[in-house]
Amino acid sequence: MLNNQFDAQISQRIDQKTKPPGALGQLEDLAFKLAKIQSQSDVVNNIQLSKPTVLVFAADHGVAQEGVSIAPSEVTQQMVMNFLSGGAAINCFCRSNELELIVIDCGMLNSVDDDSGQLVLQRLGAGTKNFAQQAAMSAQQLEQGFAMGSGIVNKTIASGCNVLMFGEMGIGNTSSASAILAALLQLDAQHCVGLGTGITPEQLQHKLSVVSKGAERVRGMTPHDILCEVGGFEIVQMIGAFLAAAENNTPVLVDGFIVSVAALVASRINPDCTEYMIFAHCSQEAAHQAVLSELDAQPLLDLGLRLGEGTGAALAYPLVKAAAEFYNHMASFESAGVTV
Amino acid sequence: MLNNQFDAQISQRIDQKTKPPGALGQLEDLAFKLAKIQSQSDVVNNIQLSKPTVLVFAADHGVAQEGVSIAPSEVTQQMVMNFLSGGAAINCFCRSNELELIVIDCGMLNSVDDDSGQLVLQRLGAGTKNFAQQAAMSAQQLEQGFAMGSGIVNKTIASGCNVLMFGEMGIGNTSSASAILAALLQLDAQHCVGLGTGITPEQLQHKLSVVSKGAERVRGMTPHDILCEVGGFEIVQMIGAFLAAAENNTPVLVDGFIVSVAALVASRINPDCTEYMIFAHCSQEAAHQAVLSELDAQPLLDLGLRLGEGTGAALAYPLVKAAAEFYNHMASFESAGVTV
Repeated sequence: MLNNQFDAQISQRIDQKTKPPGALGQLEDLAFKLAKIQSQSDVVNNIQLSKPTVLVFAADHGVAQEGVSIAPSEVTQQMVMNFLSGGAAINCFCRSNELELIVIDCGMLNSVDDDSGQLVLQRLGAGTKNFAQQAAMSAQQLEQGFAMGSGIVNKTIASGCNVLMFGEMGIGNTSSASAILAALLQLDAQHCVGLGTGITPEQLQHKLSVVSKGAERVRGMTPHDILCEVGGFEIVQMIGAFLAAAENNTPVLVDGFIVSVAALVASRINPDCTEYMIFAHCSQEAAHQAVLSELDAQPLLDLGLRLGEGTGAALAYPLVKAAAEFYNHMASFESAGVTV
Repeated sequence: MLNNQFDAQISQRIDQKTKPPGALGQLEDLAFKLAKIQSQSDVVNNIQLSKPTVLVFAADHGVAQEGVSIAPSEVTQQMVMNFLSGGAAINCFCRSNELELIVIDCGMLNSVDDDSGQLVLQRLGAGTKNFAQQAAMSAQQLEQGFAMGSGIVNKTIASGCNVLMFGEMGIGNTSSASAILAALLQLDAQHCVGLGTGITPEQLQHKLSVVSKGAERVRGMTPHDILCEVGGFEIVQMIGAFLAAAENNTPVLVDGFIVSVAALVASRINPDCTEYMIFAHCSQEAAHQAVLSELDAQPLLDLGLRLGEGTGAALAYPLVKAAAEFYNHMASFESAGVTV
């Protein structure tokens, strides 16, 4: 758990800036959070941002065979190739905000060739099993997934990064995330299922029945059992990644619905994790709001995004930079000679 | 008025990007708007962003004598000095987002010395008259203000800027903006008056009565008459600036409540202006929502800001950059070989 010894000093520093108290709204909370994370030793530090990096966790889902998505599973692989050649939305936003990008194959149906040096292979298999019919993964795969997610975070931090963004790619993964959410919070599946990237009302009914069946099987079980039954390879690696970021005292910008479900599970395993989470945006996926409420999170952006890939997290990063800049360099009433 | 000849082509280009239709939410509307503005000749162009510049219009208000603000008028001057020495919030956000900053003295009580080369003197006087007692400015000052606002925009564009952000500084200017709004939309003053940067409930009652008196005097009059009676020097220069930006086919990011009121008045003088306005954020000032609704505007950010200075516009700029980058460089389904 973060220590609170400098909370008052950090708040005071923010309040003495040349602005009415609270006038920078959520940016003040963001600056407080970042400053607190980075002031865990014996002094109050400026906020330093180094090598901000987006990790996109990709995998395939057996449940996609049920026709719960607008796209076939091969699109996971096609989109990963798009990431590696720089053509996807997440590439554009990484370029415009000067972010590093690492793509992690957590277990796509087929892996891809990579010339870009941006692909990390951490394959737990060739997609999960179809959770409508059987357990998505074994307990061993789950543990291995946690370790792999932790590993890529440790490695990224070791290379000089101190602020992370998590995103995902995986046809069928909103169904997995919805089933996890329904089982974990013991919600009716209909409150956890949405249109994904844009299915029809008929597909939605079918998706609801598939998710409902999976969720019912594990309702109220432990997070581990829920994940084995209805989880996804990218989701379990993200959970390991959230846990490792907290252990490394490193903040993470959380993208949309699927990443937020991983964040929620991580917070059930280690509640301290939430102190490192910055919720980037509110997705169009209706159930995202349920996850955000459960985590008492107020996301920074609400742009009607429903794409995933880490796009919301990447778009929110300039607000992190702005928060750091004002915390570090904005004048105080005293230094600027402004009447309080 | 912008011509619509390339609307279908621009929409199609956005829809062919490797994402489900509409999945980038408001960023797609933003890209459309920017592309349309920049495709007014005979081809559909990429979006080019050049020398993005924040113009902060500063002035004093006679009505501040009524005690309608948390701060005395001298704070206008002190904050302008803070802008020029790089210590204010707007400076921080200009640095973190790589924006140019120009400060315009539209008529502060006293002008200030400037070593930074960022101050432009376009003084219409030493503050307006107190609108609680008399007309704030003459018809001649109003016309001169429009011309000066237009002048600084023409000059900024001539220097190579093709995307503007407008902000303001002026103790007392929420009272002026509220009175303009109430008179122009024939609203009850209580729906137009808010806490500004943070007055007490008692001060709010007094502010309401001051604004109400001013607004009643000019209810339903022409924009010109309203501005002479209850306007502000920075407000009228911003109106001239909005009109000139439209004439120069240049988009403007609109900051908070006061800038939005100027935008509203400009749109009444020339309705085509709105095609160039990008509403950056929704301010904490309650009446901002009324202005945004009237303009049918959906702002990009909602961070609980209530500072002014152009801070919301500067914070939203990276979204403009991101929209341009995806519009210009994101792969299409065809080019990336992704299954539609």
